[in-house]
Amino acid sequence: MTTAEPILIDVKPALDIVPGMKANLILTSGPGLPWNEYVGGQREGIIGGALYEELASSHEDAVAKLDAGEIEVGACQDFGCVGSLAGIYTSSMPVFVVENAKGGSRAFCNMYEGKSRKRLNYGTYDETVRNQLKLIEQVVAPVIGEAVRSAGGIPLKPIMIRALNMGDELHSRNTAASLLFARELFPQFLKLYAKLGANLEKTLEILTEDHYFFLRLSMAAAKATADYAHGVEGSSLVTAMAFSCKEFGIRVSGLDDWIRGPHAAVQAKLFEGHDASEITWMGGESPITETIGLGGFAQAGAPTLQAYQGGSYEEMMKRNVSLYGITFGENPDYKIAALGYRGTPTGIDVFQVLQTKVLPVMDIGIAGSGGGQIGAGIVSAPIECFQEAAHRYSEKYG
Amino acid sequence: MTTAEPILIDVKPALDIVPGMKANLILTSGPGLPWNEYVGGQREGIIGGALYEELASSHEDAVAKLDAGEIEVGACQDFGCVGSLAGIYTSSMPVFVVENAKGGSRAFCNMYEGKSRKRLNYGTYDETVRNQLKLIEQVVAPVIGEAVRSAGGIPLKPIMIRALNMGDELHSRNTAASLLFARELFPQFLKLYAKLGANLEKTLEILTEDHYFFLRLSMAAAKATADYAHGVEGSSLVTAMAFSCKEFGIRVSGLDDWIRGPHAAVQAKLFEGHDASEITWMGGESPITETIGLGGFAQAGAPTLQAYQGGSYEEMMKRNVSLYGITFGENPDYKIAALGYRGTPTGIDVFQVLQTKVLPVMDIGIAGSGGGQIGAGIVSAPIECFQEAAHRYSEKYG
Repeated sequence: MTTAEPILIDVKPALDIVPGMKANLILTSGPGLPWNEYVGGQREGIIGGALYEELASSHEDAVAKLDAGEIEVGACQDFGCVGSLAGIYTSSMPVFVVENAKGGSRAFCNMYEGKSRKRLNYGTYDETVRNQLKLIEQVVAPVIGEAVRSAGGIPLKPIMIRALNMGDELHSRNTAASLLFARELFPQFLKLYAKLGANLEKTLEILTEDHYFFLRLSMAAAKATADYAHGVEGSSLVTAMAFSCKEFGIRVSGLDDWIRGPHAAVQAKLFEGHDASEITWMGGESPITETIGLGGFAQAGAPTLQAYQGGSYEEMMKRNVSLYGITFGENPDYKIAALGYRGTPTGIDVFQVLQTKVLPVMDIGIAGSGGGQIGAGIVSAPIECFQEAAHRYSEKYG
Repeated sequence: MTTAEPILIDVKPALDIVPGMKANLILTSGPGLPWNEYVGGQREGIIGGALYEELASSHEDAVAKLDAGEIEVGACQDFGCVGSLAGIYTSSMPVFVVENAKGGSRAFCNMYEGKSRKRLNYGTYDETVRNQLKLIEQVVAPVIGEAVRSAGGIPLKPIMIRALNMGDELHSRNTAASLLFARELFPQFLKLYAKLGANLEKTLEILTEDHYFFLRLSMAAAKATADYAHGVEGSSLVTAMAFSCKEFGIRVSGLDDWIRGPHAAVQAKLFEGHDASEITWMGGESPITETIGLGGFAQAGAPTLQAYQGGSYEEMMKRNVSLYGITFGENPDYKIAALGYRGTPTGIDVFQVLQTKVLPVMDIGIAGSGGGQIGAGIVSAPIECFQEAAHRYSEKYG
């Protein structure tokens, strides 16, 4: 897991690059479910995806075609993708293509929709959301794709290592990483400006306007990294954590299939005008970052998150340190200066979680039942997944 | 002091913009001294400045002309400038021009020479140093000047506020601020690329290659800020801290002239191959940053400095917190997330220093007697300056 070297090599429409992607297929977050089990914002997100892709002429028509199986639904991670919140992928959507220079399979992530609280990945679809997605598809993705190819690929690990020294934990805060990524592209931007003009200016703006642009690169890098550690005979290390509207799931390196459990517990800080009754689950696979020792496992490096997701820096430090009790090792590359340059706790071990009762924590955005982001917070993975994993492990390995 | 709004408005040769600058004048750090009292690296720096400016044909000739008064020496801060280490300014050197939008006088700082350990501001002058300075003068300064004018000026405070959330303390670490500054210039760079080409590429590289580029902007911003608080009748707040090869000095808002004392005490971490016997004083005015609540007064925001200047993050936190005991207030803009977004301790009060015996700490680069940087560390201002200030204060105000 710690030896992977994720490199961004391209940006392409999902249909052209994601193995198994089809024109009538919509991907979404979490361990896969039959279409009729997706509810709330995640169901709305899938329908929104169908409309965005013009697979249906109306909400009603989309539901009918999904019911009939004419429009299909798949689980992101079965396709090498990793979904933010609802994690809707359609065939025309551009994805970051990340390759592990050490081997293993490619990983993909689609792109940040912009700082509006209403986004398809938060279960909302309307004209505004459509325009944002079109801007990404037609302006931002082609510009970044051209710059990345012109640069011959962008190694992501060096950016992530530096960003951890600049206040990011690479899940809920990616401010420095986004800026460092823009810096890497800028020499190409200079060369491409005569050709791309205003599209390039717009892309530059979107790249650095918010705390989230780089998250999708962090997720794709984490997916390529975690997948490299998957399938090791006898290993009890977690290689993915993700949830759908219905359940939380983990993958374990030495075991097959998702191990499913109830929803995670959440401690949220909500934006003004919202209350806890609105908090809803509509999927999320960004905890792939925690799986490789980032996000909640690197909170001590991101003191500003207290303002965004609540809690004091002291609590964040303590929580971060407690996670060394459930990980196999310390990351040789991702280090936290505030912890004396200690490597982040990396490689969640199923049995250590059960022994210590310390649960993996994840920094996440909070979705509201009315659609859109209503806050941010910290969630703890459910113990049931780890109990079930231990059970399956002993069944398989004795 | 906290209301100043420093804006970078231009980059120009010192002779064209610094009031009182002359072709045969060389400025240097610290409370002014007669030429013959400058020794060691600071003396060599002045001689190097004379050679760089071609005011003399050889080292010997420079000394003769300095002895004869044909080449004059002045103190940076008497000219609105602020010097890094030896702080050598000559007439052709480009300076950042910083204006306080709230009023007050302009402040100037010349530019970072690059990451080589041998630099004129570290008392070294040779062909390599000359080439670096010429690169700054002929390539970097014109490019940045054009971009800054094209942008209509760059407000520095917003950059500094953000950088404090990204691991900088804006004295010995300016990594994020340099990147944020580059980001502000990007849109202009795109427009200027067709005209400036390779010069622009080189400038971009230098802007972001090291932890120090933005320091000179932080210093100029701090000088404009501190000067705005200077000359307040009855005020016992410190408005500058600086040193020469001979002595440490402070300025106090309600008092005239520098108040001079012995050298500061130093705790250094040296680069490999160097030892404490080499540590030398050759001037330094970058503690203007501490004077306005940055640098050592914002250490808790820059945990990576432990690797550069020694000490643990815990010690840095404690030291930072102890400084609230000697400052008049907390900065309303410059805040530290790791301290629960508390404003940095700002406005060093002469009498509080004497009461608490807590001395102002400064993050500085360490010069070696052989020339060049040999490490970094923390220095504490000498108590004698504060004793003398209190004495003068009671003489003046009773």
